[in-house]
Amino acid sequence: MIHFNKVTIIGVGLIGGSIGLAIKKRKLAKEVVGVFRRASTLRRAMRCKAIDRGTRDVSDGVKGADLVIIATPVSMIPAIASVVIKVAKRGCIITDAGSTKGWIVAKVEKMASCRPDVYFVGSHPMAGSEKAGVESAAPELLKSAACIVTKTPRTPPGALRAVTGLWKALGARVSVTSPSEHDRSVSFISHLPHMVAFGLAGSVGVADLKYAAEGFRDTTRVASSDPKLWADIFLTNRIEILASSRAFEKNLKRILTALQKGDRPSMTQLLAKAKAKRDKLSNEKKKI
Amino acid sequence: MIHFNKVTIIGVGLIGGSIGLAIKKRKLAKEVVGVFRRASTLRRAMRCKAIDRGTRDVSDGVKGADLVIIATPVSMIPAIASVVIKVAKRGCIITDAGSTKGWIVAKVEKMASCRPDVYFVGSHPMAGSEKAGVESAAPELLKSAACIVTKTPRTPPGALRAVTGLWKALGARVSVTSPSEHDRSVSFISHLPHMVAFGLAGSVGVADLKYAAEGFRDTTRVASSDPKLWADIFLTNRIEILASSRAFEKNLKRILTALQKGDRPSMTQLLAKAKAKRDKLSNEKKKI
Repeated sequence: MIHFNKVTIIGVGLIGGSIGLAIKKRKLAKEVVGVFRRASTLRRAMRCKAIDRGTRDVSDGVKGADLVIIATPVSMIPAIASVVIKVAKRGCIITDAGSTKGWIVAKVEKMASCRPDVYFVGSHPMAGSEKAGVESAAPELLKSAACIVTKTPRTPPGALRAVTGLWKALGARVSVTSPSEHDRSVSFISHLPHMVAFGLAGSVGVADLKYAAEGFRDTTRVASSDPKLWADIFLTNRIEILASSRAFEKNLKRILTALQKGDRPSMTQLLAKAKAKRDKLSNEKKKI
Repeated sequence: MIHFNKVTIIGVGLIGGSIGLAIKKRKLAKEVVGVFRRASTLRRAMRCKAIDRGTRDVSDGVKGADLVIIATPVSMIPAIASVVIKVAKRGCIITDAGSTKGWIVAKVEKMASCRPDVYFVGSHPMAGSEKAGVESAAPELLKSAACIVTKTPRTPPGALRAVTGLWKALGARVSVTSPSEHDRSVSFISHLPHMVAFGLAGSVGVADLKYAAEGFRDTTRVASSDPKLWADIFLTNRIEILASSRAFEKNLKRILTALQKGDRPSMTQLLAKAKAKRDKLSNEKKKI
């Protein structure tokens, strides 16, 4: 069983908080320390029992940790990692929970090259919701969730085993892949749907909202997510999202062309193809 | 309190079945008769207690009814209405549950003009799910759901009052509007989201589905809906859906242009605008 003396989680929001709760519930660490800019957030994280103690100072929080998990918004991860790398103890393993990987992993691996005695492995636990904040955190948020761990020629094999072991211990279904393959897959399965949901919610007239039924609610639910957080994610996976949105636009155009022509057989076939893919996923909501 | 002697529901699927259950639960009719092509469906509807008795013959089912509700797929509604209009008793009120209104109402009103003693009013109860069939029917499906009832220069005022009264008695929030205004609003709030969900589900690679989290699940949930049923709906509201999809594509293009330029302020602003609209809806799932 994987076990750490001190785990430090930087960024104690929905994901960081859920990781803290899960590590504590499963007794995977002697101590879980939280780092956050705002003291009020740390107090809330303590109240939720997501962390054992909190600090606003990255260096203080990281000192002596054998595992550091950076769960801040994507754009802050490299800058925070640079501090962590400087102050981490020898043998420390560093990972993150960022939704894009190529941009982060390239930057952090470059920084980490000056400290061959600390080990970085990129992670993306694919859980979350449109809600934010440690109050929405839950110890089972990661249970049965997909979690992608990235592997590059620079990834230390021991640290890769430890990080995959951590996520598995928290109940996630772990896949190991390259940062670029991660970014391609995730642009289709997560970033594009978010962008489309924002696009849909933004194009409807406020007066029509009174007619919204489950279809509109479901399709646009993630448009209630934090705009800054998602601008960050989109901007750090730009090339892949532009490519996947072209594929989406091309497919939508096919359906719209069938509509314009009144071509019922093509329309039905395109919808049936989409349904067949969607039906591969169960519609069961994860119970947390 | 509104009350009918005999109500006939033609098409006893998710919507027709739920209407039957709700009418029986609220004791709004002495008898609820179901009409369906397949005898097995009628047996299932009887087992679910959605109807008191069933028949495969429209004329037989409609005979003596004071209210007929046509809850079949959209494209069948005018043809069924033409039979209903012929055999309905004097004073019979006819309504439907179709998701498009302009196409249906124009056709049915024209047919009904030769029977001034029967009264047609178009309806669109906006409830449903990606699931189909009478087994998924629930007496509270319409509770708090929006229901649009259409009014034209030909709509008989007494029948309009009876039909709005029916939906209100079933718990729906009723709005009265013209068929064309219905089709415009609903193309944005229901048809476009369904089309986009089909477009999204169809453009993802099957290998990437293993990474699907709640974002993808929610955004594409309605792509599991019946392709024939939705091809029907799309094709009978063609002009409005083409217009609303152009508005969506224009808005999505704005976000993608900000992405391409790396323009974080514009991107954040566009996402925040979308979130503000979506946040006007509560995220609470209706309990049924």
